[in-house]
Amino acid sequence: MPRYALKIEYDGGPFAGWQRQAAQPSVQAAIEAALGRLEPGPHTIAAAGRTDAGVHATAQVAHADLTKNWEPFRLAEALNWHLKPAPVAILAAARVDEGFHARFSAIERRYTFRLLARRAPATHDAGLVWQVLNPLDADAMRAGAAHLLGHHDFTTFRSSLCQSASPIKTLDEIRIEDIALPHGREYRFHLRARSFLHNQVRSIVGTLERVGAGAWAPGDVARALAARNRAACGPVCPPQGLYLCGVGYPADPFRG
Amino acid sequence: MPRYALKIEYDGGPFAGWQRQAAQPSVQAAIEAALGRLEPGPHTIAAAGRTDAGVHATAQVAHADLTKNWEPFRLAEALNWHLKPAPVAILAAARVDEGFHARFSAIERRYTFRLLARRAPATHDAGLVWQVLNPLDADAMRAGAAHLLGHHDFTTFRSSLCQSASPIKTLDEIRIEDIALPHGREYRFHLRARSFLHNQVRSIVGTLERVGAGAWAPGDVARALAARNRAACGPVCPPQGLYLCGVGYPADPFRG
Repeated sequence: MPRYALKIEYDGGPFAGWQRQAAQPSVQAAIEAALGRLEPGPHTIAAAGRTDAGVHATAQVAHADLTKNWEPFRLAEALNWHLKPAPVAILAAARVDEGFHARFSAIERRYTFRLLARRAPATHDAGLVWQVLNPLDADAMRAGAAHLLGHHDFTTFRSSLCQSASPIKTLDEIRIEDIALPHGREYRFHLRARSFLHNQVRSIVGTLERVGAGAWAPGDVARALAARNRAACGPVCPPQGLYLCGVGYPADPFRG
Repeated sequence: MPRYALKIEYDGGPFAGWQRQAAQPSVQAAIEAALGRLEPGPHTIAAAGRTDAGVHATAQVAHADLTKNWEPFRLAEALNWHLKPAPVAILAAARVDEGFHARFSAIERRYTFRLLARRAPATHDAGLVWQVLNPLDADAMRAGAAHLLGHHDFTTFRSSLCQSASPIKTLDEIRIEDIALPHGREYRFHLRARSFLHNQVRSIVGTLERVGAGAWAPGDVARALAARNRAACGPVCPPQGLYLCGVGYPADPFRG
């Protein structure tokens, strides 16, 4: 059976997350239903990152096995047609080897978290950012974030529901953009790792927001990490600012 | 009665436009209702630009007369509280002289139009851009736009419903940004004038899109302008890409 990789953008707002669930809408089920309009199902697709309810993607990657030889551009177009009006878009499709697995072949995940700081409520960005009312100290957040870079036991920043075999992960990048807006500021947290624990990004951003607000000192992040204890974490921030922005593979399936 | 200027951001999607109407939701009515929660009404506010159904604003300006002396920051906060959950936000409030009129004192309006060119449907930007499927020739659109700069009879680019006394306007700026996205391109049209005719921006952008697509030559824009005839205009583009981005006054009421 020919295997296809799909690069997927979605607004997580109306979904209970990526993963198919019995009674709630999911991104996975929406795409599997669209595949079912092209070839009789059932279809089961696998994704690089199983995003939580409300979490967005600009470049999620999943793979699907089909029976026909689809021209990739036509496959993407047909899926987009059948996905309407759900806020899910297939940005690209590519034929891949049987050995390619969207989740297990991935060697890098990139997430961005958008945090808006202003008094007036978000309008165009409602549901697309986490909003706080007061500006934050970006340099303090960067100093706090520096303690998390590299190879660590991230038990503190891990959901109690996390199914990962080990809490030890390597955070390869954590970069904080500080963007001046006509009214307020936006902070964008860019994180990159081979893989993340469940709720790791939201636990880290929620903790760094406390640093930015002055409630925590940057060094408190190091102490929280060293505690290896979920109770030492800052508040987990809400999902609507989080975006899965990229997945890396040994060879980019969408190039060439 | 103390007069206040309000700087307002809104998502035009759920509204039949700025202007109050009998049976349909409007931005004006939403703000007047919020004012009614602060002081007994009826309230009637006036805005610099009476945006059409579906058109957005990032910096609309309106003025309101109240009886109490409101601290401007508290006035904005109270209005935002009562506006929830409508996608309307008061970005700033300022006390102004009785002689200030949001519409008649304005000496400049700035509009931005967002045009997304890509195959896959917009998700996060749905309702916030006009989407076409294929990339456009930005240089050709710029060459076409150059013919519109300056003092002209804009009858061609004017709605038949336009109530302006004269079709003669001065377009002070028309600048086209060409932004490469990971998938597709976005073209942002920035227009600035003392005032605009009804549908002028959408008529101009719709015409320039035809130039960008190669259906019109840049010189055809000059011929359309010279025709001074609505029938010579290209298709009027849809409202959801249009943003009222700024209003200029002899003295900025929100500074100082």
